[in-house]
Amino acid sequence: MNQAGKPRLLTGDRPTGKLHLGHYVGTLANRVRLQDQYECFFLVADLHILTTRVDRALLLETNQNIREVVLDNLSVGIDPERSFYFLQSLVPQIAEIALIFANLVTVPRLQRVPTLKDVMRDLEIEQPSMGLLNYPVLQAADILCVRANIVPVGKDQASHLEVTREIARRFNSLYEVEVLPEPDTLIGDVPTLIGLDGQAKASKSLGNAIFLSDDAKTVEQKVRGMYTDPNRIRADIPGKVEGNPVFIYHDAFNTEEAEVADLKERYAQGKVGDVEVKRKLAAAINRFLDPIRERRAALQAQPHLVAEVIAAGSERARQETTETLRRMKEAMGLVWKG
Amino acid sequence: MNQAGKPRLLTGDRPTGKLHLGHYVGTLANRVRLQDQYECFFLVADLHILTTRVDRALLLETNQNIREVVLDNLSVGIDPERSFYFLQSLVPQIAEIALIFANLVTVPRLQRVPTLKDVMRDLEIEQPSMGLLNYPVLQAADILCVRANIVPVGKDQASHLEVTREIARRFNSLYEVEVLPEPDTLIGDVPTLIGLDGQAKASKSLGNAIFLSDDAKTVEQKVRGMYTDPNRIRADIPGKVEGNPVFIYHDAFNTEEAEVADLKERYAQGKVGDVEVKRKLAAAINRFLDPIRERRAALQAQPHLVAEVIAAGSERARQETTETLRRMKEAMGLVWKG
Repeated sequence: MNQAGKPRLLTGDRPTGKLHLGHYVGTLANRVRLQDQYECFFLVADLHILTTRVDRALLLETNQNIREVVLDNLSVGIDPERSFYFLQSLVPQIAEIALIFANLVTVPRLQRVPTLKDVMRDLEIEQPSMGLLNYPVLQAADILCVRANIVPVGKDQASHLEVTREIARRFNSLYEVEVLPEPDTLIGDVPTLIGLDGQAKASKSLGNAIFLSDDAKTVEQKVRGMYTDPNRIRADIPGKVEGNPVFIYHDAFNTEEAEVADLKERYAQGKVGDVEVKRKLAAAINRFLDPIRERRAALQAQPHLVAEVIAAGSERARQETTETLRRMKEAMGLVWKG
Repeated sequence: MNQAGKPRLLTGDRPTGKLHLGHYVGTLANRVRLQDQYECFFLVADLHILTTRVDRALLLETNQNIREVVLDNLSVGIDPERSFYFLQSLVPQIAEIALIFANLVTVPRLQRVPTLKDVMRDLEIEQPSMGLLNYPVLQAADILCVRANIVPVGKDQASHLEVTREIARRFNSLYEVEVLPEPDTLIGDVPTLIGLDGQAKASKSLGNAIFLSDDAKTVEQKVRGMYTDPNRIRADIPGKVEGNPVFIYHDAFNTEEAEVADLKERYAQGKVGDVEVKRKLAAAINRFLDPIRERRAALQAQPHLVAEVIAAGSERARQETTETLRRMKEAMGLVWKG
């Protein structure tokens, strides 16, 4: 099945907006490395949006967001010749597989998935929709529809993958087949980037992130506004380096190690102003983003590129998914022979 | 859209076995009448089976059961030239529509559907599967996928249709469209037939039903074993007519009204034996079933007929369903424009 002769990896993005440095650190950097080792399927999960928001205003932005997400992925160096980008709503077999899977998992099991409570708290959802409760089942369909062997996930998503593994096991044991792989996780490769404002996580909705598509001026401006050590009201007061967003970003994006070490030392001693620390950080981030911007400009110059990438990836995913569904129905005895 | 210029009706059967007199009284008789008034879509709901049973043994019987259900429907006089039989698993858009609908209804709402508790009690299910909880959502997709205007339902299913109506309303109001009709119910046209053994309902699983495909000898044998008035241990003891299964069946299937009146009178007076009452009932049921048997034999003589009926109906349902999904996605803003 696997034409590339490599294990198959699946991961994806919900197309709700442009990707930022947090996504880079968390997953994109990893994807660039993983595409050598694995045959990669990247899901653009437009139907996932509905599990938490169904308003038309948001959905109307989805076309633009799909474009941004794919451009962001390609501009960091993912090669669409080797990897497949597929749009969830263009692979209708995912819904069929999810419908079958829903019968293999109990309601209490899904109610125990920890992220459900987290999402409900964060989004102030009092009563979950069926779609939200069913989210790990849909995700199982996303993963297993292409029979992925490995899924890089953040710690917060590990509980979802456990549901996927349980469903695969239950299906195979119930119908005495080996149709669905039990995918392994790549955990720990998904670090979280602190927000510019010092909040635990950089995110679009919190407005505390630098986007991969931000221009140099915007980066400078955002870095100038970054949260640092709040006790350091003057440059000659010794500052705290550890946990300080500015130094976390230096560590993550400034490749000039000597410069970072020097800044940290002087900061701890009260011998450098925030202005210099931030100016050098903005410069480092811009050095980091420059090649990404160049690739993005080249990609955007090809007006049909994203459409072609999505069309080809979705076609490939449909092939795999049709085959998965065929094997599933055959194993179950759910084939109308007329 | 409605080529027949008539309101559209949807109803269906779960293909778990042959249909019996209870189905005739409950729904089939009604269907024969309704096909003049409505453009009828009949769903053969193979995916519904999974919401309560996922074992391969049952599923392997499904092909045969689909055939029986369609033959039973056609042999009572439903005309496949005017009505459409479609197989749920051959219309994948139903799964897509159900996946969207799941986001428009809350978990507590579905937990309050009374039939959920009934099914769990009857089938001794301790923890419902997601599929079982989601059943009214799948049913909403079955109904709304062809934009049905009317659904004949038993009282026990009326609560499901309320979910369908709520989903249609919510969709239309959320996206400010009139894409989905709010289907009306035809309640009260679905009486329940008592079991041969006196239990409240004739059913295949209870083994207390006469199948439409039973031969004359089998009918005689089943009628001989029917439950009557248990206090009437001799033919000269006055018997109870009301609530007595034998007379309920006489009322339902014996068109010789004078004969039935005479038997009732003599029974109440202790002037007729059970043997005569039952012999005349068996004869009446066989008179009722004879034309059905003849049609069935003629239909079975056409080996590809069921396959053709299912193929044509499913193709028609896919056309309608594709259009429904297109309108839904357009209204939501969920259309990838590349």
